[in-house]
Amino acid sequence: MTGRIQGGDQSLSLDLLKQKMANFAKERDWDQFHSPRNLLLALVGEVGELSEIFQWKGEVPKGLPDWKEEEKVHLGEELSDVLLYLVRLSDICGIDLGKAALRKVELNAIKYPASSNTNNGIAHTS
Amino acid sequence: MTGRIQGGDQSLSLDLLKQKMANFAKERDWDQFHSPRNLLLALVGEVGELSEIFQWKGEVPKGLPDWKEEEKVHLGEELSDVLLYLVRLSDICGIDLGKAALRKVELNAIKYPASSNTNNGIAHTS
Amino acid sequence: MTGRIQGGDQSLSLDLLKQKMANFAKERDWDQFHSPRNLLLALVGEVGELSEIFQWKGEVPKGLPDWKEEEKVHLGEELSDVLLYLVRLSDICGIDLGKAALRKVELNAIKYPASSNTNNGIAHTS
Amino acid sequence: MTGRIQGGDQSLSLDLLKQKMANFAKERDWDQFHSPRNLLLALVGEVGELSEIFQWKGEVPKGLPDWKEEEKVHLGEELSDVLLYLVRLSDICGIDLGKAALRKVELNAIKYPASSNTNNGIAHTS
Repeated sequence: MTGRIQGGDQSLSLDLLKQKMANFAKERDWDQFHSPRNLLLALVGEVGELSEIFQWKGEVPKGLPDWKEEEKVHLGEELSDVLLYLVRLSDICGIDLGKAALRKVELNAIKYPASSNTNNGIAHTS
Repeated sequence: MTGRIQGGDQSLSLDLLKQKMANFAKERDWDQFHSPRNLLLALVGEVGELSEIFQWKGEVPKGLPDWKEEEKVHLGEELSDVLLYLVRLSDICGIDLGKAALRKVELNAIKYPASSNTNNGIAHTS
Repeated sequence: MTGRIQGGDQSLSLDLLKQKMANFAKERDWDQFHSPRNLLLALVGEVGELSEIFQWKGEVPKGLPDWKEEEKVHLGEELSDVLLYLVRLSDICGIDLGKAALRKVELNAIKYPASSNTNNGIAHTS
Repeated sequence: MTGRIQGGDQSLSLDLLKQKMANFAKERDWDQFHSPRNLLLALVGEVGELSEIFQWKGEVPKGLPDWKEEEKVHLGEELSDVLLYLVRLSDICGIDLGKAALRKVELNAIKYPASSNTNNGIAHTS
């Protein structure tokens, strides 16, 4: 017994979240709806809701110092919705998102060496 | 020394990914570009690239059985790009994404009780 | 007097729509909110709402034969919202959208000659 | 012969653009690819490319005074791609986009009376 409880007081892992989403869908008989393109469009819908939060605000500073607590809570919910569908979409497509993400970070490190600061993007794969 | 290596043979945590992204930006002097709305638009751009993978395929079955390995690798990269910007955007906004995601799963469980299978969405917050 | 009334019984022109949007904003003192990136994010928000209409439906046949009239009306509204923001964004950016669209169609015709049917996209500019 | 040439020196109409898109697809045998959800995802892809143009720029002033000519040309192309897919999607769904757009402008005028300037959106249908 190591005492490590994922999703408890420690940081949430992508695998745990994947498992939670899978159980959630199964318990509600939603697997029938969770085809790749259905989930992708649902993800796009959530990205739209996320964008709506920022749409009339002009530029906003880091940390959102002037936002009300309820606005931040709402933002956290929309960010989460994007994450939940992203994790579920990856799972349904048979992609190990955590593994893919780590690989992508490494690819980005090769593409944009740390000594250079002339690029202005994290990940311009196309 | 517990021997646990996050991101190694164990599942990737959102906090570790956040830390990696923060270091990555710092080492490249990219913090100057990582305002909330810049990152949001970058996220939208990656969602667009993700959509392009699926756009001419019609419906595709779960697990993507007919996809070539290179297509799956590409898909993993685009899913990752969305995740990387989502994690970075959350961090820059001061939102604990893992915590918010767990809370959202709980809210969804209340909104869509497991006994019901009449709803067809995970998270219709609006 | 030629009797041609744009937007009446004849087809709506992009210029007329642009003018209507400009008047609409002016009358409500909304020009202050209509910066390029605000409008872009509003556009993304509307694309999200458009996606939500299709998200749980699986593939749908052309002409949407099984959709209720109210669903089609709703779809028309969301398609329109995307158009309205697109026209407004173009105007605020100083882009002549109609002219640009005609030019793009011509570029596409060169890129994808009519004799070829091996390509499967209209416009893969990147 | 009235001498009016749509798409020439006069403003482009949505109907003419719809017709051009339909001919374009027919000549290339692309109708088979133009299902509603395929076109929707293609639209999302183009919105992503549009967003990429703005993603690292921070706020940009109206009229884009500091943009190079080639950047504006590129922007015009991406705005056009969104329009082309939007027009095509509407056509394939059997929606008269021009008619729907005019109706939506009227609905917005009722929803946001001109005397009020307290609202900050064009079209918040949800």
